[in-house]
Amino acid sequence: MSEDTSTREAIMEATFRALAKHGYADLTVQAIADEFAKSKSLIHYHYDSKADLMVAFMAYLLDEFIAEVEGDEDADPRDRLRHMAEIVVRGLDDEEATRDFHAALLGMRAQAPFDEDLQGQLVENDRLIRGVVADIVREGIDAGQFRAVDPERYAALFRSAIEGAQSHDVILGDDAPTDAAFAGIESYLIDDLLATGESDLRADADDA
Amino acid sequence: MSEDTSTREAIMEATFRALAKHGYADLTVQAIADEFAKSKSLIHYHYDSKADLMVAFMAYLLDEFIAEVEGDEDADPRDRLRHMAEIVVRGLDDEEATRDFHAALLGMRAQAPFDEDLQGQLVENDRLIRGVVADIVREGIDAGQFRAVDPERYAALFRSAIEGAQSHDVILGDDAPTDAAFAGIESYLIDDLLATGESDLRADADDA
Repeated sequence: MSEDTSTREAIMEATFRALAKHGYADLTVQAIADEFAKSKSLIHYHYDSKADLMVAFMAYLLDEFIAEVEGDEDADPRDRLRHMAEIVVRGLDDEEATRDFHAALLGMRAQAPFDEDLQGQLVENDRLIRGVVADIVREGIDAGQFRAVDPERYAALFRSAIEGAQSHDVILGDDAPTDAAFAGIESYLIDDLLATGESDLRADADDA
Repeated sequence: MSEDTSTREAIMEATFRALAKHGYADLTVQAIADEFAKSKSLIHYHYDSKADLMVAFMAYLLDEFIAEVEGDEDADPRDRLRHMAEIVVRGLDDEEATRDFHAALLGMRAQAPFDEDLQGQLVENDRLIRGVVADIVREGIDAGQFRAVDPERYAALFRSAIEGAQSHDVILGDDAPTDAAFAGIESYLIDDLLATGESDLRADADDA
């Protein structure tokens, strides 16, 4: 890893911590510098503005997500979809830090309609993530594990559902129906894909 | 209708127009007054603050939504779910106005973690809307139209998916995969509920 790469990565990690602490609207380069062991001038050297840094941060998050999901490549398609849903809806082990970070993400997304560069990066993230979901679904169909759904249509729905559940968890706080939403994703989006009707409810329907 | 009620309704309609025009972050009571035919002091008489007005507006939106959905009571459960998804994901006839309004809604939701009263109102909206979805599902199961899913779990998933698709439409703009997401909701959340496997893909899976 070049020194530049490791500095950029350290800035991204500092951005992650600063976002969880301050939220998106109140985030300043100073707040990121406070989480960063090296000189603040290095942040300005690598990124022209907060907007520029946010675009880079969303690209970084995408890379992290893809790396996490690629680690599953030997798992079966059903488990890979479930793991993706877990990462997005449940997040990190630390529940409070997860919610703070998701709140910052939501604030950033809400700003995208007013920030062309940020929106462009989020469009790219969306395309890539939907592509990964569609590939997993195609693989499941080819292997005979999943029934024959339209992979692109399914991927768009899956992404709406997992990000919708993540947003609701933040928006509604402790009263959010996150457990029910996650169970719904597992039962009716993932297990219902199974060609063999392995889930109980699917089996009930097949018996009828 | 009392004069107070009609004034309050006129204020809510003005708030709707002002939100679509200015977004949530830049919304001022003056911007609402500019959309309101009567005196600005009437807005201050009825609502103590912008925060107070926003809570009332979310309650108003809930009433409008429930009234729209109650108009369907004679329709069959599948069509009622589809109509709900249409209202939330597709919105009004005017595409541009819909996106502007949805962008304002997203901005407001992103603020909920930092505004207890607003969050409380959104929690109430969530409970009521999930309750309506669960009732429709129960009715469909009782009538033999739907297979036996868990109504609460399904309702939480359905709501995450339709609001997730609405948010993505705003966040990603013209590159949003809204058509694919809506088609996915129709195929894999609504038609797949059918006990008889009426949808093509369901029928394919049953044939297999």
